[in-house]
Amino acid sequence: MEFEESGIGEECGVFGCVAAGEWPTQLEVAQILTLGLVALQHRGQESAGIVTSNGSTPPTYTTLKGMGLVSTAFKPEDLLKLKYGNLGIGHTRYSTTGISELQNCQPFVVDTLHGKIAVAHNGELVNAAALRKKVMRHGVGLSTSSDSELITQLLALTPPMEEVDTPDWVARIKNLMTETPTSYSLLVMHKDVIYAVRDPYGNRPLSIGRLVCIWDKEGDTEGWVVSSESCSFQSIGARYHREVQPGEIVQISKHGIKSLSVVPRPEGDPPAFCIFEYVYFARPDSIFEGQMVYTVRQRCGRQLAIEAPTDADVVSTVPESATPAALGYAQESGLPYVEVLCKNRYVGRTFIQPNTRLRQLGVAKKFGALTDNFAGKRVVLIDDSIVRGNTISPIIKLLKEAGATEVHIRVASPPIRFPCYMGINIPTKEELIANKPEFEDIAGYIGATSVRYLSVEGLVAAVQGGIESCGEKEQISSRTKMSKRIGHCTACLTGKYPVELEW
Amino acid sequence: MEFEESGIGEECGVFGCVAAGEWPTQLEVAQILTLGLVALQHRGQESAGIVTSNGSTPPTYTTLKGMGLVSTAFKPEDLLKLKYGNLGIGHTRYSTTGISELQNCQPFVVDTLHGKIAVAHNGELVNAAALRKKVMRHGVGLSTSSDSELITQLLALTPPMEEVDTPDWVARIKNLMTETPTSYSLLVMHKDVIYAVRDPYGNRPLSIGRLVCIWDKEGDTEGWVVSSESCSFQSIGARYHREVQPGEIVQISKHGIKSLSVVPRPEGDPPAFCIFEYVYFARPDSIFEGQMVYTVRQRCGRQLAIEAPTDADVVSTVPESATPAALGYAQESGLPYVEVLCKNRYVGRTFIQPNTRLRQLGVAKKFGALTDNFAGKRVVLIDDSIVRGNTISPIIKLLKEAGATEVHIRVASPPIRFPCYMGINIPTKEELIANKPEFEDIAGYIGATSVRYLSVEGLVAAVQGGIESCGEKEQISSRTKMSKRIGHCTACLTGKYPVELEW
Amino acid sequence: MEFEESGIGEECGVFGCVAAGEWPTQLEVAQILTLGLVALQHRGQESAGIVTSNGSTPPTYTTLKGMGLVSTAFKPEDLLKLKYGNLGIGHTRYSTTGISELQNCQPFVVDTLHGKIAVAHNGELVNAAALRKKVMRHGVGLSTSSDSELITQLLALTPPMEEVDTPDWVARIKNLMTETPTSYSLLVMHKDVIYAVRDPYGNRPLSIGRLVCIWDKEGDTEGWVVSSESCSFQSIGARYHREVQPGEIVQISKHGIKSLSVVPRPEGDPPAFCIFEYVYFARPDSIFEGQMVYTVRQRCGRQLAIEAPTDADVVSTVPESATPAALGYAQESGLPYVEVLCKNRYVGRTFIQPNTRLRQLGVAKKFGALTDNFAGKRVVLIDDSIVRGNTISPIIKLLKEAGATEVHIRVASPPIRFPCYMGINIPTKEELIANKPEFEDIAGYIGATSVRYLSVEGLVAAVQGGIESCGEKEQISSRTKMSKRIGHCTACLTGKYPVELEW
Amino acid sequence: MEFEESGIGEECGVFGCVAAGEWPTQLEVAQILTLGLVALQHRGQESAGIVTSNGSTPPTYTTLKGMGLVSTAFKPEDLLKLKYGNLGIGHTRYSTTGISELQNCQPFVVDTLHGKIAVAHNGELVNAAALRKKVMRHGVGLSTSSDSELITQLLALTPPMEEVDTPDWVARIKNLMTETPTSYSLLVMHKDVIYAVRDPYGNRPLSIGRLVCIWDKEGDTEGWVVSSESCSFQSIGARYHREVQPGEIVQISKHGIKSLSVVPRPEGDPPAFCIFEYVYFARPDSIFEGQMVYTVRQRCGRQLAIEAPTDADVVSTVPESATPAALGYAQESGLPYVEVLCKNRYVGRTFIQPNTRLRQLGVAKKFGALTDNFAGKRVVLIDDSIVRGNTISPIIKLLKEAGATEVHIRVASPPIRFPCYMGINIPTKEELIANKPEFEDIAGYIGATSVRYLSVEGLVAAVQGGIESCGEKEQISSRTKMSKRIGHCTACLTGKYPVELEW
Repeated sequence: MEFEESGIGEECGVFGCVAAGEWPTQLEVAQILTLGLVALQHRGQESAGIVTSNGSTPPTYTTLKGMGLVSTAFKPEDLLKLKYGNLGIGHTRYSTTGISELQNCQPFVVDTLHGKIAVAHNGELVNAAALRKKVMRHGVGLSTSSDSELITQLLALTPPMEEVDTPDWVARIKNLMTETPTSYSLLVMHKDVIYAVRDPYGNRPLSIGRLVCIWDKEGDTEGWVVSSESCSFQSIGARYHREVQPGEIVQISKHGIKSLSVVPRPEGDPPAFCIFEYVYFARPDSIFEGQMVYTVRQRCGRQLAIEAPTDADVVSTVPESATPAALGYAQESGLPYVEVLCKNRYVGRTFIQPNTRLRQLGVAKKFGALTDNFAGKRVVLIDDSIVRGNTISPIIKLLKEAGATEVHIRVASPPIRFPCYMGINIPTKEELIANKPEFEDIAGYIGATSVRYLSVEGLVAAVQGGIESCGEKEQISSRTKMSKRIGHCTACLTGKYPVELEW
Repeated sequence: MEFEESGIGEECGVFGCVAAGEWPTQLEVAQILTLGLVALQHRGQESAGIVTSNGSTPPTYTTLKGMGLVSTAFKPEDLLKLKYGNLGIGHTRYSTTGISELQNCQPFVVDTLHGKIAVAHNGELVNAAALRKKVMRHGVGLSTSSDSELITQLLALTPPMEEVDTPDWVARIKNLMTETPTSYSLLVMHKDVIYAVRDPYGNRPLSIGRLVCIWDKEGDTEGWVVSSESCSFQSIGARYHREVQPGEIVQISKHGIKSLSVVPRPEGDPPAFCIFEYVYFARPDSIFEGQMVYTVRQRCGRQLAIEAPTDADVVSTVPESATPAALGYAQESGLPYVEVLCKNRYVGRTFIQPNTRLRQLGVAKKFGALTDNFAGKRVVLIDDSIVRGNTISPIIKLLKEAGATEVHIRVASPPIRFPCYMGINIPTKEELIANKPEFEDIAGYIGATSVRYLSVEGLVAAVQGGIESCGEKEQISSRTKMSKRIGHCTACLTGKYPVELEW
Repeated sequence: MEFEESGIGEECGVFGCVAAGEWPTQLEVAQILTLGLVALQHRGQESAGIVTSNGSTPPTYTTLKGMGLVSTAFKPEDLLKLKYGNLGIGHTRYSTTGISELQNCQPFVVDTLHGKIAVAHNGELVNAAALRKKVMRHGVGLSTSSDSELITQLLALTPPMEEVDTPDWVARIKNLMTETPTSYSLLVMHKDVIYAVRDPYGNRPLSIGRLVCIWDKEGDTEGWVVSSESCSFQSIGARYHREVQPGEIVQISKHGIKSLSVVPRPEGDPPAFCIFEYVYFARPDSIFEGQMVYTVRQRCGRQLAIEAPTDADVVSTVPESATPAALGYAQESGLPYVEVLCKNRYVGRTFIQPNTRLRQLGVAKKFGALTDNFAGKRVVLIDDSIVRGNTISPIIKLLKEAGATEVHIRVASPPIRFPCYMGINIPTKEELIANKPEFEDIAGYIGATSVRYLSVEGLVAAVQGGIESCGEKEQISSRTKMSKRIGHCTACLTGKYPVELEW
Repeated sequence: MEFEESGIGEECGVFGCVAAGEWPTQLEVAQILTLGLVALQHRGQESAGIVTSNGSTPPTYTTLKGMGLVSTAFKPEDLLKLKYGNLGIGHTRYSTTGISELQNCQPFVVDTLHGKIAVAHNGELVNAAALRKKVMRHGVGLSTSSDSELITQLLALTPPMEEVDTPDWVARIKNLMTETPTSYSLLVMHKDVIYAVRDPYGNRPLSIGRLVCIWDKEGDTEGWVVSSESCSFQSIGARYHREVQPGEIVQISKHGIKSLSVVPRPEGDPPAFCIFEYVYFARPDSIFEGQMVYTVRQRCGRQLAIEAPTDADVVSTVPESATPAALGYAQESGLPYVEVLCKNRYVGRTFIQPNTRLRQLGVAKKFGALTDNFAGKRVVLIDDSIVRGNTISPIIKLLKEAGATEVHIRVASPPIRFPCYMGINIPTKEELIANKPEFEDIAGYIGATSVRYLSVEGLVAAVQGGIESCGEKEQISSRTKMSKRIGHCTACLTGKYPVELEW
């Protein structure tokens, strides 16, 4: 399903770049930042922004912001403005509140006693309300309801003891991290340095890449990039280096990368990387915790085939996000994989008045049925998640009208039942199909022959350990060990939040 | 490969709708026309236009035109303007000349002695130059270089003998058809009637659908639609009815559809439906000559596997258009099908200055490599066509860098070598890779381990007859008969044009 | 009163330019055309268009069109496109029909047997309906309801007897002029020549200017311009040369200007230059028939003071168009001239919902009262025309509330009572205040102490002869002679049309 | 001269409105705010913003902001958003820095410990640098370089001693006023109250108006408005009430207006209302210190006639701002007043490449010469100020070419020689013509026959006292008394700043 329809949305993507030497040139830094944001576009389409710094003392910052996709927000002539920077950070934003305004567009730049800092943030502070009060009690006025503005003011406000004349941004960042446990992946730029920060629970992703020379000294390091997802590295000629660890502060400058500190979690707390990054948000070619997202989704499909086998003729996908799970299901079940839906790439907003019969036809403008591939057959249709239940229903109708004798829905993730307070935009509890009375007879409600979901345990296993039947035994033992170090937030499925929520 | 990059482009899509009774309402007619064009958007993204008629005497026509995609060109408030029509025709345009202006946007409406007609046209007149001269010699000034304006003026100008006071549009259309053999699929609206016309060679497609009641009397006919491709029928709740035959004039009104005439080809000339509609242009869920385009493409892939088998580990696709051929190749060859490329849905125009090293990275912003699926393996990569050779090259590089040991390119169509004069925008002969010296060592040129194309005979067989190994024997015999009635234009592959070209 | 509010509108302005030598350069020709249209902007604000020709054989034409003011319609980068032309014509359009579409934007370019011509037209053909029928009977389809398209098709269609191989555009233009007597001022560009044409009645204005060298050989001729109004000459460094005479065809090329022909009126018919060009439309610094428009308006004010003297304290104006008449009235009456209204230059469209009390305040957002200048005084307020009567009323209210003891309205033109069929957009007969019952007590209706209009005779005298009391005796005798050669259309005031109207 | 060309610019206009009862409705409050800003548009055209409050506890604020003129910035549908407010404040902004961004658009809204406040500001803080440092030292990050953001943070930050649980905004405002002496006219909205504040020197204007019932109980108070200039009152049906006094804090609520405090200036300091508000910025129908701006300008013209009499034939104006001075000069000198220039209302930005000869023609596209009114005559041309000297020069050339035998420039204000630090955007000292060597022979430089400026004493006399020769003797005595209470900032003319400047 598409993000827009399912109503689940990621908050943001962040991206940073530092040139190490002559290459990339200043113009290329601007282009790398742009391409990096394009590759993170799936994490936010509302607005985009870039701030570059020339790195001198005092630094000159150049800001470029706009509404919409990167390609809309930045015009070619605008990009030229950015060219006077050797380093920079960028941000793509997903609107969580419906208030879509340029003033919420990140990165935020504020002038402080120690010069200007620029901040780009992905996540949501669990204790934002208390922090806002604290900041305002100190006499600071806040212009937006954004957590990211709050973070910039906290960084400006908290002077650590030992700071006398020169600013100690690392101490300030650590201070911030003790004030708020999660969730944030953060880029803080000051003068000629970018600090890449991940909250102690590692709830949001953040990866580092190395810009590699493609000319004279092929393979030499020519700069560093940092990104919400590693999928952005290929498009700019960077190599995956490593993830920023939960709680870690990494300093990135033209001299290289340097781990400055790792702020620990409370004793006994496991990390809590958002499991829905695997299931849903991330681009399939991104790598988290050493594994490719596509592969995890394929394992989810295999696990689903084990948990919810089906007596049917063909397996298919709701393109495009469910395809790895569908291929996994096909592999595991032995059923042939075929395509049953063809997507119209050009569907935009078309304006159908609400009270017309055409509303009934709904999703059909988005998909066409590949009739010959399934007419007269029993179809297993894999979807990656069913959130509200209103988009899968017309697809089922379409397939049945085109001749499918049975349509079995298999969902490659468990039902979502609880709100997220850590950066994901989930419909209200009441809107979630899993909390409605209709969920009792979900198959009847959406018109399917049968409906089955992946179990929470199955999902965690697929994410954390691989599945026995895959013949990945050796891997499993090592993964089991890793699972002590790893751990995932499944709050939206289980209601178990990684930290206690204050109200 | 995407249309934009390959440089091959369809000229247009046409769509018409007539309401038979109360339903669809006038507002819904406007919406059906809009949705119909959205479903034909792949045939042209430059501009869109709709003209509706209220059907009365004299008729009132309402016109809506705009640049860009349907969703951009028509604003919600604009659509309300269209609501006073019981019938209408629409058009999406692909820019063939680079001159992108609103005045070229169809349908064209002209006032004639017998009232206004509206015309939507897909195709290109092979004898346009001679016809222009003829029209101008008669004293008509032509505002555009468009064949479609030429057609409207020819319809206005040619009064057949028998026409006295009332207009005889059918005679005028027949007259036009004797003046120009190909290529055109044409919708001519006058007052309360749409004439759907296909040239005698049937070079461009045109299908009729029936609007079906989804309420009181389920299944009853409530109107008629006509479209370049049947893929647009599902999205508006219409059922595929039949194709307009080569040379046929079909009258569509609220009283139903009526075949008025079939203008014959010169004795012995076979029909010449454009084979590239199957290979490339049409949406996979469209139906031509009784067969689904997806199925034909799959057969092309199977045929390719027979003609060009490969010693490799996995088969994959350049998403998304080559996927059916890749699945066919996998089926026939027995090699496993995997996905190796992940597409960034949000790539728009990003502005990379030409003289920077980032240019080198090229296509990578559009695709990500799904490394785990092919690292250390020999990959057969299926593409639907290679026109210029400049887009496949960076993909191969991407796969090799990500660990593919061999990358064998298999192209599910023969090399394009000749220009098209019948509505397809093909690069100049010099730009076509198949005409360049580099084609001698095409594999070396694009960096592939090996390159093989489907043969012309193989393509024709896949299109016309199915393949024995598919176990479609029964079908084949019937198809063989059909092949007497059918026939395809392969001019861009063979240089054999269906009619003699005048210069 | 502003055009927008009064509901009277001019159809268009036309402008042409031919470079004689090296200067103006091609880029400057484009700029001269743009500046020329800016100076004619008061004649039409709906759309603007320019076509330039490089003058070669065959010529290359470049077209630039856009909606809105010249400054909106043409972007800087667009203007560069025009730079490859040594000559060109332009057009600004006023929407007369409410249908505001780019396809009505002039100049029109059509391809004919003898090459492309471009046409720009100001006026309206009195026998348009009959001509349309004639053209369509010949088999020509017309795309718009525009008279200007009709003119282009008539030019394309009418091959004069003597024309064999080479086109005889002059014969074609003459032919056109015999088919339609009025009204048109026309620019026809073909290859390297512009034909400037005025209809036999001279209903619409057209003047020729000489581009003068401001460099090396100061004063030398460097090109020619032709314009609806001479006010456009100053802004481009041109000198007023002369008017195109009624019925005259002037050929303008790099070799200079040449009068080719003067098509006569029917015996006994006087010329019929639109008197409202003086009263209302033209810019005050334009020159018609040897006199400056401002001076004529001032004479109207003096004549008004003679016809309708007032016992009052001060004379003032509704800025800005009535100011010359007000100054004339003050001079003649001996009353002091003061300003009572101050205009807000920035009033744009602000959106006041119709059913609120703010509507009552109406015009006040446009004008402020300069209270000190008239509080406690009796004011004579001069307006140039009262068309609907709905805009002067709130002004009177404003002045009274600010302390004027009496407000006497004196209108420097007679009441408009009849429609115009020659290019002016006048409200329907029913909307004209002069045709309403309320006109009986117009003063009471609009809230004035008294209302008086200039007489038709007074207006004609002011336009044609000057006024004795001005001490212009010598001038008068010469003007009386001229009045045999001159004559004015007063149809909207008197119902006497210069030609018989066919229906 | 136009603002844009002269390079002098006002910073902003502020406007507020509180409804007292049922009328104005919430929708009308939004419209009154819009119309109020339209009437202040001459004070700033870069951006516009409005914030309304519903007045409840806690209040809901609605914000609307946009770039450009009010009519561009606010779309009709946007205004509907504002309709849920009984009170609100608005702002129009003039770009002083060249950085034109939406984030600088006022009013600023910040959330504080005691709820949200909205602030609109006109002026510039003389000690901004020191205050910024102070605020940042407290740990506040500043997002913009705007003084207005600084003010909002100072209001948020400074908790006065006596404030315990409930906020004491008045004490906070007083506190602010002790921190910074000038210049600011300020509107601070909190919940259901607007505080209207003028700095102790009264450098920027601020007036209060009373919304008057125009229906049932005609004349009853229905609300209150506050505005930079009283010219905005007429357009919304408000009556001028009084000015906010220097140093005064006026509370405006639905219960009426209440003077809360007057913060005094240092002993002996006179007030310092900007004299250029009279000369240049304000709309002529605005009232400051009991006198209409138009009348003051007329007095400047009379004084100029006394100081700089001319032997000439006619007096005229550079329309439109110099007209009152020109009429005053004509009255005093006895020379006849005529119009010599006609303005093209439609001149927008037209794009003339810098290196073409058309540049030479410059201002001519903006003005036409009314030749008949001055050809062969000696002209006195009144201008309101000459700042850079580059715009008057082409006007003089235009008049001379059109036949003026002499052109004497008389400037109705003294030469500007010094920078302003209190809110006016003046060109750099080097750019000011009065500081250039060319000023020695300014007449020669600009091509005039002679040039004379009004003296500083003459300007002050015209502003403060009226002139004896006007026969305003009685007034003068009262004005002389008033002059003890009044006083004006003439820093840009004399270099004498009202407060000592810190650096």
